[in-house]
Amino acid sequence: MPLRANDPTRKCWLEVPENSDFPIQNIPFGVFITKDDVVTIGTRIGDYAIDLGALQQMNYFEGIELTDDMFMQDTLNDFISDGKKTWRLVRNRIAELFDATNPKLRDNAKHREVVIFNLEDVEMQLPVLIGDYTDFYSSKEHATNVGKMFRDPENALLPNWLHIPVGYHGRSSTIVPSGIPVHRPHGQTLPPGNDTPIFGPSKLVDFELEMGFITTDSNIMGEPIPVDEAEQHIFGMVLFNDWSARDIQKWEYVPLGPFLAKNFASSMSPWIVTLDALEPFRTEGPEQEPTPLEYLQQEGKHAFDIKLQVALQPEGGNENVICNSNFKYMYWSMSQQLAHHTVNGCRVNSGDLMGSGTISGPTPDSFGSMLELSWGGKQPLTLDDGTERKFINDNDTVIMRGYCQNDNVRIGFGEVSSKLLPAYSKR
Amino acid sequence: MPLRANDPTRKCWLEVPENSDFPIQNIPFGVFITKDDVVTIGTRIGDYAIDLGALQQMNYFEGIELTDDMFMQDTLNDFISDGKKTWRLVRNRIAELFDATNPKLRDNAKHREVVIFNLEDVEMQLPVLIGDYTDFYSSKEHATNVGKMFRDPENALLPNWLHIPVGYHGRSSTIVPSGIPVHRPHGQTLPPGNDTPIFGPSKLVDFELEMGFITTDSNIMGEPIPVDEAEQHIFGMVLFNDWSARDIQKWEYVPLGPFLAKNFASSMSPWIVTLDALEPFRTEGPEQEPTPLEYLQQEGKHAFDIKLQVALQPEGGNENVICNSNFKYMYWSMSQQLAHHTVNGCRVNSGDLMGSGTISGPTPDSFGSMLELSWGGKQPLTLDDGTERKFINDNDTVIMRGYCQNDNVRIGFGEVSSKLLPAYSKR
Repeated sequence: MPLRANDPTRKCWLEVPENSDFPIQNIPFGVFITKDDVVTIGTRIGDYAIDLGALQQMNYFEGIELTDDMFMQDTLNDFISDGKKTWRLVRNRIAELFDATNPKLRDNAKHREVVIFNLEDVEMQLPVLIGDYTDFYSSKEHATNVGKMFRDPENALLPNWLHIPVGYHGRSSTIVPSGIPVHRPHGQTLPPGNDTPIFGPSKLVDFELEMGFITTDSNIMGEPIPVDEAEQHIFGMVLFNDWSARDIQKWEYVPLGPFLAKNFASSMSPWIVTLDALEPFRTEGPEQEPTPLEYLQQEGKHAFDIKLQVALQPEGGNENVICNSNFKYMYWSMSQQLAHHTVNGCRVNSGDLMGSGTISGPTPDSFGSMLELSWGGKQPLTLDDGTERKFINDNDTVIMRGYCQNDNVRIGFGEVSSKLLPAYSKR
Repeated sequence: MPLRANDPTRKCWLEVPENSDFPIQNIPFGVFITKDDVVTIGTRIGDYAIDLGALQQMNYFEGIELTDDMFMQDTLNDFISDGKKTWRLVRNRIAELFDATNPKLRDNAKHREVVIFNLEDVEMQLPVLIGDYTDFYSSKEHATNVGKMFRDPENALLPNWLHIPVGYHGRSSTIVPSGIPVHRPHGQTLPPGNDTPIFGPSKLVDFELEMGFITTDSNIMGEPIPVDEAEQHIFGMVLFNDWSARDIQKWEYVPLGPFLAKNFASSMSPWIVTLDALEPFRTEGPEQEPTPLEYLQQEGKHAFDIKLQVALQPEGGNENVICNSNFKYMYWSMSQQLAHHTVNGCRVNSGDLMGSGTISGPTPDSFGSMLELSWGGKQPLTLDDGTERKFINDNDTVIMRGYCQNDNVRIGFGEVSSKLLPAYSKR
């Protein structure tokens, strides 16, 4: 099926600001609540939120096989479960409907009124019910930086890293959408020189610049997804801030991995950009040496050129850009991650989230965490207000943005922005 | 509210076999499908499955505040979400209804016919939709055994172990009820002496004898559950076999913990036995030295005396009991686990599952995994058919059972039984 929705020459009858992440070629999917407290599935064009539930009720999806209330739901799970063919039909239909030359909705003021909202008048929700959340660790630069700091600088990468897209399970109950503030966590830490741990608020709260991909129902239990088919099972991508408490992590993580250091919160951008929309931005990933085992080998371009940026904004201050990275730096591709995840027969469901792991690039200004940017606190960053940061302070806001750009079109993710509140105390 | 359902003197008008795990004092909760393909929530007395949905439709729960379709659902999540007071009212009502002296249902043949099924005529389902699954590592004997085998025998316990109920996130999508067979997983391993990994079916598939507890909605995000309140948020317990592939685990687990070695399958018993039913079996847990940090300190008895047994049954052969253990050996209590899990503000939802970790006792015949029973394969077990086992063979069935017993009553869990199928191959 042609990706007609991607046609770069298409113009939209809705106003789209210059350099918007959301031209008519994007058509991401999300869930929002309107002023009238209606929950609906929607898309975004420019700074407008489009109510797909209302469009469905008024028959604008006629001819596409959808259950009656497909878009009148509070998660995208059922829609995602319908599979790639349906996603494409719906994106194509939306593109046609908002095509500058199509008068059908454009000239129907009554319909426009119940379908199109200003973005500031809706409240974005988590777009999926996340059954399971897995986090990978697939940036070689990030794994090397961490290895240099905490283990042996001469053998920074562990022996399995170049063979396995290393990953672990995270907690889905604490994944929140952009805009929801997050408390600094309490926990156990072992201060340097101590024999026994202490309890208190974490002193080393960090962000991790990640992206996540959302899967559809992919397999029955026991059945692997071949690497060459994996992308068929990926619905789309989001920006993802995997909040981390480094001091809690250091004390707790042996031998079973990070737990409370991570599961207090993760923040994600609310619009899922489809893999289809990202198609023009495929690129080569890093060379893989040694050659991976056969079930991880793939031909063609499976990396995506997505420019990523992190800004830190102190309370009442300006945004300070502290990192410029790119999703294409990932050593392991999403299809390799999904093939690996299921090679043992692990079942993947609609709405599952897979995080990339921290996305660090080759240069120090592309490192995707404070841990790396300040090199373990040894090289604090100086902000434009003269204050220094080794890690994240109370009331700092961390803002991540990402977009793809070629000569024809810009496809972006908007942002995931979240403020770190002081540690919780019962009032 | 008195635990009237626990009255040990109560007799039931249904026949209950001697030494049944499910006398009228148990009243566990589960979900089953009837011969007519109706899914319902139910309980079990003796070898009968009781349809609580049918009972509700016929008004037997009158006077208890329940939504109209509370028991006509395919998971217990909503019921669990209603909280401890409701659980008690319902258990008390069921106890009264089946009390030998109560003619109401006993003498109504028409009602009995649509409410009471022979166990073999229903198909047990997973009783909850598990949002998140956490696995702890709370048996000191197990952690010590593993430490001795894989690390330093002189310092078998890692420094954090006596301070933290160590835990990590598992995958909920591959948790299956008793009776569902499980495929031997494929994966990467590094054979001894190799420089590079190979791919193939795991050679070292193991069980882990665990129990799990099911939580209710416990807190808002950011808010810890104090250790003294934690048991209020625990609905009940199940038997749990945390299938593990030791060779995959060994190669993949550094530095982020076990992943594909565990997430191919876990098996659980289908009836959730309430914490209320286990009340008579509280006992002292092991002494905790050093004293834990304040947020983990608790008074009173928070361990439970639950006898546990593992049997291995080769294809066409007899059950061989290979392990006798007890839940009371757990160093960290469930309330300490839950308090720790939420001390950073991690949100816990209704239907979440928390595994205990392998439950090993002090003697070699009480070790809860083949890894420990065969001491890393060095001391194979001999079965009654003369064959040896270091780990689990294809077509072996692993059966775990558990029950509590005092002079008055026996409260049990039934079993979790699952067969290991050969590695998956596409036909």
